[in-house]
Amino acid sequence: MKIFAYGIREDEEPSLKKWEQANPDVEVGFTNNTLTADSARMAEGSDGVVTLQTSDYTREALEVLHNLGIKYISIRNVGFDNFNFQDLNDFGFTLTNVPVYSPNAIAEHAVLLMGRLLRRTPEFAQKIEDGNFTWAPTIGKEYREQTVGVIGTGHIGRVTMQILKGFGCKIVAYDVYHNPEIEKQGLYVDTLEELYKQADIITLHVPLFDSNKHMINDKAIEQMKDGVYIINCARGELIDTDALIKGLDSGKVAGAGLDVIDNENSVFGKKWSSIDNIPNEKIRNLAKRLNVIVTPHSAFYTETAIHNMITTSFDSNKSLIEGLKPDNIVNTNK
Amino acid sequence: MKIFAYGIREDEEPSLKKWEQANPDVEVGFTNNTLTADSARMAEGSDGVVTLQTSDYTREALEVLHNLGIKYISIRNVGFDNFNFQDLNDFGFTLTNVPVYSPNAIAEHAVLLMGRLLRRTPEFAQKIEDGNFTWAPTIGKEYREQTVGVIGTGHIGRVTMQILKGFGCKIVAYDVYHNPEIEKQGLYVDTLEELYKQADIITLHVPLFDSNKHMINDKAIEQMKDGVYIINCARGELIDTDALIKGLDSGKVAGAGLDVIDNENSVFGKKWSSIDNIPNEKIRNLAKRLNVIVTPHSAFYTETAIHNMITTSFDSNKSLIEGLKPDNIVNTNK
Repeated sequence: MKIFAYGIREDEEPSLKKWEQANPDVEVGFTNNTLTADSARMAEGSDGVVTLQTSDYTREALEVLHNLGIKYISIRNVGFDNFNFQDLNDFGFTLTNVPVYSPNAIAEHAVLLMGRLLRRTPEFAQKIEDGNFTWAPTIGKEYREQTVGVIGTGHIGRVTMQILKGFGCKIVAYDVYHNPEIEKQGLYVDTLEELYKQADIITLHVPLFDSNKHMINDKAIEQMKDGVYIINCARGELIDTDALIKGLDSGKVAGAGLDVIDNENSVFGKKWSSIDNIPNEKIRNLAKRLNVIVTPHSAFYTETAIHNMITTSFDSNKSLIEGLKPDNIVNTNK
Repeated sequence: MKIFAYGIREDEEPSLKKWEQANPDVEVGFTNNTLTADSARMAEGSDGVVTLQTSDYTREALEVLHNLGIKYISIRNVGFDNFNFQDLNDFGFTLTNVPVYSPNAIAEHAVLLMGRLLRRTPEFAQKIEDGNFTWAPTIGKEYREQTVGVIGTGHIGRVTMQILKGFGCKIVAYDVYHNPEIEKQGLYVDTLEELYKQADIITLHVPLFDSNKHMINDKAIEQMKDGVYIINCARGELIDTDALIKGLDSGKVAGAGLDVIDNENSVFGKKWSSIDNIPNEKIRNLAKRLNVIVTPHSAFYTETAIHNMITTSFDSNKSLIEGLKPDNIVNTNK
């Protein structure tokens, strides 16, 4: 059995090697190229393909794989919106994804962003760089004094709450679907308005729907406490960036930790000559503030997460080749 | 009754105002000056003095206070080594300190330093500033995968462990004195060597004694895991800075989070024209590394801690004036 993998980065290679060692019955080939009509030929002789890319998978590339007799594609991430399902079906592909790779990676990053804002670490880093080794007046706040509003109590939201409990934070939660454990702990409030009223820090852990696009807008911010901190490690479109900037300008919002930003694809994932030359004025505005921490959609990016992405995708591909039906099939050929 | 306070900083004023409002029977005067022979005269008409400074309290200053009929001094911090106890006794002063103001402030800072190292935040901050919005190859590690060695299980060490448990870390602890709670949880190892062998991250929470000066030296570092992270929010003298730099140079030590550094008084608490001009080559060496985070002895510096320092010192001074004997008397006028 042979599996060929596309878009393999250097940081994935150690996990890939481990998987190979644990699966000596499988021959593994790989390239750092993405899957295109050209590179598709590299999979010749393989039974399945593992891949990860942000660009679209073309019909031409899939056709080449089909002509090589390949039926199974396993992506190493969650999202499969860069596949055309009609193409997949036409060529008889079965596709798997990795639905969860590490809720902790995201949750830990979100909690860390909170602490970095509370302790004003960008200001302290700037002071040290400037040779200023005084502490006053850069006074911090403690986690344990904060009420944190967690919006979304799925996997990631619940791990976030677990961590915050260790810090001694007070927690209020909101979700349309109530998790029985969180319900039992009495942490849910009935409305977002109630959460906004109570929370010193608000952290978003919901998927994006049409209904919650720009849920954090002028009106929502108006309902929040003065000096609120807002954390977003979920989806950029949840926050109306103009409203956030307005809130930061007025001081209503004391700070923000943003791993995702609306229209981030115009900037994230690329190298620009300097922060002043990025082609998105709003992201530039945010990233240059000392009370805003921007990370480039990197919350997920831990050794554990990468290991799980590799392991789950290769395991799934191997299962498909063996004729099994793993739980994470997102498209069956017909 | 009147209390006069010295060295009051702007960030202390809100807490001071709150204390005044809660104690309408006490007249409060204050200055941002430290307590010297000159400024001592400002306390005329007062029954007690509250103070905080890092410079020595002179015999002359104490003599002026004595001649004004003042008998009670309450410091807003822990350490009273800048008092000459002979002088205090000669003039019949009773002195109180604030033995604990916020173990959480230090513990939270220590845990935050760990996370910032694990997620390589100085590198990410540098990337963003340079206009580089890619995440690879700056891969992070997760707290929950780490074994943290906590040296010292007093107040601060125990709060640190509580927080780390929320993250799902594995914890090993070492202390000469075993805390019964931690003992019951089976977290103690018998020797430092055993802790060094197991820990991915080592955090120091012990007081400084002659016996543990430079406990983290070449030999200790040699016994640690490759790629260990070292956190010090306790006392600078616990670490032999040369050994730490050697460990960082060789890669044995993957990173360090330092709120205190041996000989920090040569640099900390002051403003220099730039990081390149600080008069301590070792601190400069450390502070310029992207895998070392230096904070200027600011772990304690939170609104909660400042509030507790003001409240406890003023409460103690008031008690002394009322003829009571608070628990935190460090010197009695016999």
